[in-house]
Amino acid sequence: MGAIAAAIAIGLAALGAGLGNGMIVSRTVEGMARQPEARGMLQSTMFIGVAFVEAIPIMAVVIAFMVMGQ
Amino acid sequence: MGAIAAAIAIGLAALGAGLGNGMIVSRTVEGMARQPEARGMLQSTMFIGVAFVEAIPIMAVVIAFMVMGQ
Amino acid sequence: MGAIAAAIAIGLAALGAGLGNGMIVSRTVEGMARQPEARGMLQSTMFIGVAFVEAIPIMAVVIAFMVMGQ
Amino acid sequence: MGAIAAAIAIGLAALGAGLGNGMIVSRTVEGMARQPEARGMLQSTMFIGVAFVEAIPIMAVVIAFMVMGQ
Amino acid sequence: MGAIAAAIAIGLAALGAGLGNGMIVSRTVEGMARQPEARGMLQSTMFIGVAFVEAIPIMAVVIAFMVMGQ
Amino acid sequence: MGAIAAAIAIGLAALGAGLGNGMIVSRTVEGMARQPEARGMLQSTMFIGVAFVEAIPIMAVVIAFMVMGQ
Amino acid sequence: MGAIAAAIAIGLAALGAGLGNGMIVSRTVEGMARQPEARGMLQSTMFIGVAFVEAIPIMAVVIAFMVMGQ
Amino acid sequence: MGAIAAAIAIGLAALGAGLGNGMIVSRTVEGMARQPEARGMLQSTMFIGVAFVEAIPIMAVVIAFMVMGQ
Amino acid sequence: MGAIAAAIAIGLAALGAGLGNGMIVSRTVEGMARQPEARGMLQSTMFIGVAFVEAIPIMAVVIAFMVMGQ
Amino acid sequence: MGAIAAAIAIGLAALGAGLGNGMIVSRTVEGMARQPEARGMLQSTMFIGVAFVEAIPIMAVVIAFMVMGQ
Amino acid sequence: MGAIAAAIAIGLAALGAGLGNGMIVSRTVEGMARQPEARGMLQSTMFIGVAFVEAIPIMAVVIAFMVMGQ
Amino acid sequence: MGAIAAAIAIGLAALGAGLGNGMIVSRTVEGMARQPEARGMLQSTMFIGVAFVEAIPIMAVVIAFMVMGQ
Amino acid sequence: MGAIAAAIAIGLAALGAGLGNGMIVSRTVEGMARQPEARGMLQSTMFIGVAFVEAIPIMAVVIAFMVMGQ
Amino acid sequence: MGAIAAAIAIGLAALGAGLGNGMIVSRTVEGMARQPEARGMLQSTMFIGVAFVEAIPIMAVVIAFMVMGQ
Repeated sequence: MGAIAAAIAIGLAALGAGLGNGMIVSRTVEGMARQPEARGMLQSTMFIGVAFVEAIPIMAVVIAFMVMGQ
Repeated sequence: MGAIAAAIAIGLAALGAGLGNGMIVSRTVEGMARQPEARGMLQSTMFIGVAFVEAIPIMAVVIAFMVMGQ
Repeated sequence: MGAIAAAIAIGLAALGAGLGNGMIVSRTVEGMARQPEARGMLQSTMFIGVAFVEAIPIMAVVIAFMVMGQ
Repeated sequence: MGAIAAAIAIGLAALGAGLGNGMIVSRTVEGMARQPEARGMLQSTMFIGVAFVEAIPIMAVVIAFMVMGQ
Repeated sequence: MGAIAAAIAIGLAALGAGLGNGMIVSRTVEGMARQPEARGMLQSTMFIGVAFVEAIPIMAVVIAFMVMGQ
Repeated sequence: MGAIAAAIAIGLAALGAGLGNGMIVSRTVEGMARQPEARGMLQSTMFIGVAFVEAIPIMAVVIAFMVMGQ
Repeated sequence: MGAIAAAIAIGLAALGAGLGNGMIVSRTVEGMARQPEARGMLQSTMFIGVAFVEAIPIMAVVIAFMVMGQ
Repeated sequence: MGAIAAAIAIGLAALGAGLGNGMIVSRTVEGMARQPEARGMLQSTMFIGVAFVEAIPIMAVVIAFMVMGQ
Repeated sequence: MGAIAAAIAIGLAALGAGLGNGMIVSRTVEGMARQPEARGMLQSTMFIGVAFVEAIPIMAVVIAFMVMGQ
Repeated sequence: MGAIAAAIAIGLAALGAGLGNGMIVSRTVEGMARQPEARGMLQSTMFIGVAFVEAIPIMAVVIAFMVMGQ
Repeated sequence: MGAIAAAIAIGLAALGAGLGNGMIVSRTVEGMARQPEARGMLQSTMFIGVAFVEAIPIMAVVIAFMVMGQ
Repeated sequence: MGAIAAAIAIGLAALGAGLGNGMIVSRTVEGMARQPEARGMLQSTMFIGVAFVEAIPIMAVVIAFMVMGQ
Repeated sequence: MGAIAAAIAIGLAALGAGLGNGMIVSRTVEGMARQPEARGMLQSTMFIGVAFVEAIPIMAVVIAFMVMGQ
Repeated sequence: MGAIAAAIAIGLAALGAGLGNGMIVSRTVEGMARQPEARGMLQSTMFIGVAFVEAIPIMAVVIAFMVMGQ
């Protein structure tokens, strides 16, 4: 039962992280291509956003490791 | 049973947080690329929005840890 | 049974809150980037909207805590 | 059984309220950014719309509390 | 069984009401921002539309209360 | 069994009525904002359309009340 | 069994009728707002289309009433 | 068993007919609003298309009546 | 078992035929409204396309009649 | 069992053929309305494409007839 | 069991082939209507693409025939 | 069991290959219609992309053949 | 059980790889058609992106081979 | 049970990685085609984004290998 639970948690987390980071980074790259002089500003905002997006999936990784042995 | 429940809670939370934060941060980056002088204003609004989006998934993390041992 | 119920409630609530807040805050940021002088007005409307969106998920958090022990 | 029912009711209600309010408030913010002088009119219409959208989910909250103990 | 039925009925009704009212009110707000002098006309049409949309979910609320005790 | 059936019938009917009426009334409001002098004509067409959309969900309400006691 | 069947039939029929009529009537209203002199022609076409769309759901209503007692 | 089968057949048929006819008639109305002099031509094409779309759902109605008594 | 099979076959066939014919005929009507002199050519192409689309659903009708009695 | 299998095979095949042919023929009609002198060329390409699309569903028809008696 | 498996394999293959070929051929027809002199080049590329798309569904046909008798 | 597994593997592979190749080849044809002189370059890139897309489905074909006899 | 698992793993991997590579290569081809002189740069970026996309599905292939015999 | 869990984990991870990387790399290629002189900057941002997207699926690969033997 724990194995299935770990799989569901990590699978949905990977899907969520992929979609969220995909949206943020693709827009950042698009913005940089338009205004190359704003590189630093956009990249630091991107890091903040990516960190917020990754926060919950990393919790999911922790939970997946914890429920695996049940 | 608790393991499956924790997986569902954290998985859907990660998906919701990924989509919500992805929308907010990608638009913020887009807005910054258009108007670099509005950097501070947009970033502070972004932080408020991200905090509201993260509020419920963090509750989900807490609930996931609590139901894990049942 | 209570654990699964709590997971469904908090998971769907996180998804709904993420989507709803994502739409509102991203549009607010977009509007600010166009008209920086309307900052206060847009932000106060955003707070009202976010509060309405969060109302039901917070009820869901309460219900999730209550059904967890059943 | 009552716990699952409460979870389904509150979960779908949170999803519906999030989507409905998200659409209304985001458009209101967009309209304000275009015509700042119409602030009062748009905001009062927004409150009416949000109230109608919240009516059914609040019923759902009541029903969720009632079926929880069955 | 009645609890689950009430949950399905009220949940789908909340989703339908949220989407329907969201579409109507957001377009009304958009129209008002374009033509502020048509405020009364648009708002009265909005009330009629919202009333029609709410008619079926309110029936669903009634049915949900009736089947809850079965 | 009758309770579940009534819930499915009324739930899908509310969803259908919400989407159908939402499309019609939002377009009517949009049309009125463009051509305020065509108010009567658009509104009467809207009433006819809304009546057709509501016809089947109202049948669903009747059927839901009938199957509830089985 | 008959109750569930009646619910599925009437529910899907209401969804189909809502979407189909929604598309037709909203486009008719849009066309009228552009060309008010074509009112009669558009409305009569709309009636024909709505009648075709309603034909199958009305059959579904009949079938739903027939299978309800099985 | 026959009742459920009849419900699935008529339900999906109503959904398909609603979507198909909705697309055809809404485009016809749109075309008429642009070119009122092409009324006859467009309407006759619409009748042909609607007839083809309705052919399979009417078969579904027949099949639904036949399997109802099994 | 045969009844359910017939329902699935005819239901999906009706959905496919509705969507396919809807796309073809709506584009034909749109093309005619732009270029009324190309009426014959467009209509004959439409008949060919509709015939190809209907070929498989008609096979489905035959199969549905054949499996109904099993 | 064979009846259900035949229904799934023919149903999905009808859906795939409807969508594929719908895309091809609707674009062909659109292209003809723009360039009536390219009629022959477009129509022959359409026939090739429709033949490729129909190849797999016709295999599905054959398989459906073969598994029907199992 | 083999019959159901054959139905799933051939059904999904028909859906994939229909969507893939539909995209390729419809774009080819669109490209030809814009540049009739590039007929040969576009058509040969289309044949290569259609062949690659058909490769896996034809494998699915083979597998469907092989698992049918199990 | 092996037959169902083979059907799922080959079916999803055919769907993925159809969608992936459909996107690549349709864009290549579109690019060629715009710039006929870039034929060789676009076609060689297309071959590389199609090869990468086909790599996993071909693995799926191998696995489907291997699990068929279990 | 292993056969089903291998089928799920390889099927979803093929779907993911098809969509991911389809997006990357189709955009590369589009970019090349616009700026033929940037051929080398775009193609090398494409290879890097395709390699990252293929990394997880190839792991899935390995896992599928490993769980096949369980 | 472990085999199914590994399949779900790796399958969803491959889907998420494919979609996320597909969005990022395709936008990067698009940006390079517009501004070839920004090659280095866009590519380094792309590497950062791809690394964040890959982080969770690689965790999923590890978890899949760990639960495979349970």
